[in-house]
Amino acid sequence: MTHFPFEIAAVDGAARTGRIQTPRGDIRTPAFMPVGTAATVKALYPEQVSEAGADIILGNTYHLMLRPGAERVHRLGGLHRFMRWSGPILTDSGGFQVWSLSKLRQMSEEGVTFKSHIDGSAHSLTPERSIEIQADLLGADISMQLDECTAFPSPREEAERSMEMSLRWAKRSKAAFGERETQNLFGIVQGSTFEDLRRRSAEGLMEIGFDGYAIGGLAVGEGFEAMCEVLDFTTPVLPLDRPRYLMGVGKPVDLVESVARGVDMFDCVMPTRSGRHGQAWSDYGPVNLKNARFAEDDTPLNAAIACPASRDYSRAYIHHLVRAGEYLGSMLLSWHNIAYYEDLMARMRTAIAEGEFEAFRRGFLERWHSNEKDRAE
Amino acid sequence: MTHFPFEIAAVDGAARTGRIQTPRGDIRTPAFMPVGTAATVKALYPEQVSEAGADIILGNTYHLMLRPGAERVHRLGGLHRFMRWSGPILTDSGGFQVWSLSKLRQMSEEGVTFKSHIDGSAHSLTPERSIEIQADLLGADISMQLDECTAFPSPREEAERSMEMSLRWAKRSKAAFGERETQNLFGIVQGSTFEDLRRRSAEGLMEIGFDGYAIGGLAVGEGFEAMCEVLDFTTPVLPLDRPRYLMGVGKPVDLVESVARGVDMFDCVMPTRSGRHGQAWSDYGPVNLKNARFAEDDTPLNAAIACPASRDYSRAYIHHLVRAGEYLGSMLLSWHNIAYYEDLMARMRTAIAEGEFEAFRRGFLERWHSNEKDRAE
Repeated sequence: MTHFPFEIAAVDGAARTGRIQTPRGDIRTPAFMPVGTAATVKALYPEQVSEAGADIILGNTYHLMLRPGAERVHRLGGLHRFMRWSGPILTDSGGFQVWSLSKLRQMSEEGVTFKSHIDGSAHSLTPERSIEIQADLLGADISMQLDECTAFPSPREEAERSMEMSLRWAKRSKAAFGERETQNLFGIVQGSTFEDLRRRSAEGLMEIGFDGYAIGGLAVGEGFEAMCEVLDFTTPVLPLDRPRYLMGVGKPVDLVESVARGVDMFDCVMPTRSGRHGQAWSDYGPVNLKNARFAEDDTPLNAAIACPASRDYSRAYIHHLVRAGEYLGSMLLSWHNIAYYEDLMARMRTAIAEGEFEAFRRGFLERWHSNEKDRAE
Repeated sequence: MTHFPFEIAAVDGAARTGRIQTPRGDIRTPAFMPVGTAATVKALYPEQVSEAGADIILGNTYHLMLRPGAERVHRLGGLHRFMRWSGPILTDSGGFQVWSLSKLRQMSEEGVTFKSHIDGSAHSLTPERSIEIQADLLGADISMQLDECTAFPSPREEAERSMEMSLRWAKRSKAAFGERETQNLFGIVQGSTFEDLRRRSAEGLMEIGFDGYAIGGLAVGEGFEAMCEVLDFTTPVLPLDRPRYLMGVGKPVDLVESVARGVDMFDCVMPTRSGRHGQAWSDYGPVNLKNARFAEDDTPLNAAIACPASRDYSRAYIHHLVRAGEYLGSMLLSWHNIAYYEDLMARMRTAIAEGEFEAFRRGFLERWHSNEKDRAE
């Protein structure tokens, strides 16, 4: 297997910054990947995603296999061409959405059968089929092994059984993926909140050997403290020279605290989902633009971000658009939120490169917590 | 009153092409004005509207006075600044939407009182208040007199009563507008489908004297033939040297046939509304992108139009987006439709300038009618 080169340019505490070099372009780390669930980062044009600073986006295997269908995307030239995104794409394995969205799941050692949440049609997903969809049909630059997302909370025995099955699926995923020159495969560490299980999972994956290591099974209700604790004992076990990807996380504060613990990659639907619900993210937390106090606020969302949505439109105008249910309100807020997330990553990369990450983190946490009473409104 | 200069560069039959020169930029005629009902051309960024070829947009007084409120827009610097549109804006008077959207209307010689369709709040609109909202508070470049939209069909006596009241309101609108250096006011010809009433209305307006003349009360169910007939006997009565604006029209074929009858300006919600409902316009009529035949159609909507939505995205991708209910589907189709409408106007302007309008019109009608069986599907 050919790892994408991962050059770590600077390390500051556990935090690191660098570049993953892929044939479709470099990924500056720590990286935030906007989520393009159904072959579109919701309410953004692909050029906006790229100009906002995203080097890589995520596509959802579960959604794409159901609609428009993985074979169809393949016949249309693959996911990059289909959705007009020329940079790298990471696809998830489909496992998480089967677990959270589909109906009538049946799990077995072989894989999972389920009914589509769209039309009730029957489908199945095995480690081998997931790799076929991701790497062969969609043409993902980075594929993920199929895993089982362990429910939280789970008894230890259940977390162990589930983690061990994910490990066996990891082996089958790697075998199905084989050796590829221009595509990579990541394994996923499971084990819920149990330190020894996380360690066993990480070691099992490293024995198999992957191009990168994801931390799964978080952001499922365990809370901020538990997430930090899992990272505290999980990232040190992972190889220093390979990318670490924390799946499905999170709020800005989660990103900062995870980067502090050595995470390199993130994805989350939060910026676009919040945007469609009238919220703008900032270092001070989320701001609800529907709030009457913005009705005549002539200032932009954030003049320091070089994105038209952040800089050129007044809060009063966006307030009006959101109240009126206009498309442009969701479009501007989703765009701003992606730009804000990417700007936050850029600020963290700079801070790490300059050996100032701890100061950045302290400043960020001060801003984040300064406004908590306000946000609770 | 200072008319905006209207230079007619070429005449071909009754069709004409030229430029209306306003302090905020020239309007190339025949012109199509995208409708920015609630201070946004739905699902488009203002830059896209302008780059698609629109020189002027329309704002709806009724919607803006209810939300965010005309005084609020004024405090925020006027409609241009509020919505980031630096070109000319024409506002309607609010009369049509009061008639079509509001509840519990009470019409009198003085004006109309009504309840908001948004929150039931009580409002009133008089010729004087409409001018205040349009010209003073929103800051429209072109304001429209308040009129009563006569229902179709109407008995002759009712059409005459209504037209005569609109004429008295025209006089009051003109008096309220006064003399302005940088803003214009248009009168509206009413009279339903009755030739003598339309003539009487036009002559009455010309006696008062306006900067331009709109033809109202069409596109309200009278049908294509009746619309053409009304234009046949109405445009010849209007002054040659002033812009003629056909309100609320229409399909591409309506625009071509109206330009052939001497109309200079149009507005219609059709391109954006159709776009939100999965339809793309073309010289062959509307095309429903939801249709299964587009599922693997790798061609763009119209490679001849210099708009990314028309040229760079495949029908298969847009089909997928529409089926999946994604924002980007509505965004791309609305953008394409505005670009198509503006491209159609540009092609008509060129044909008139080259003395080839009749040939253009014949070719267009052949394309339009060639596909009628298909469209009926």
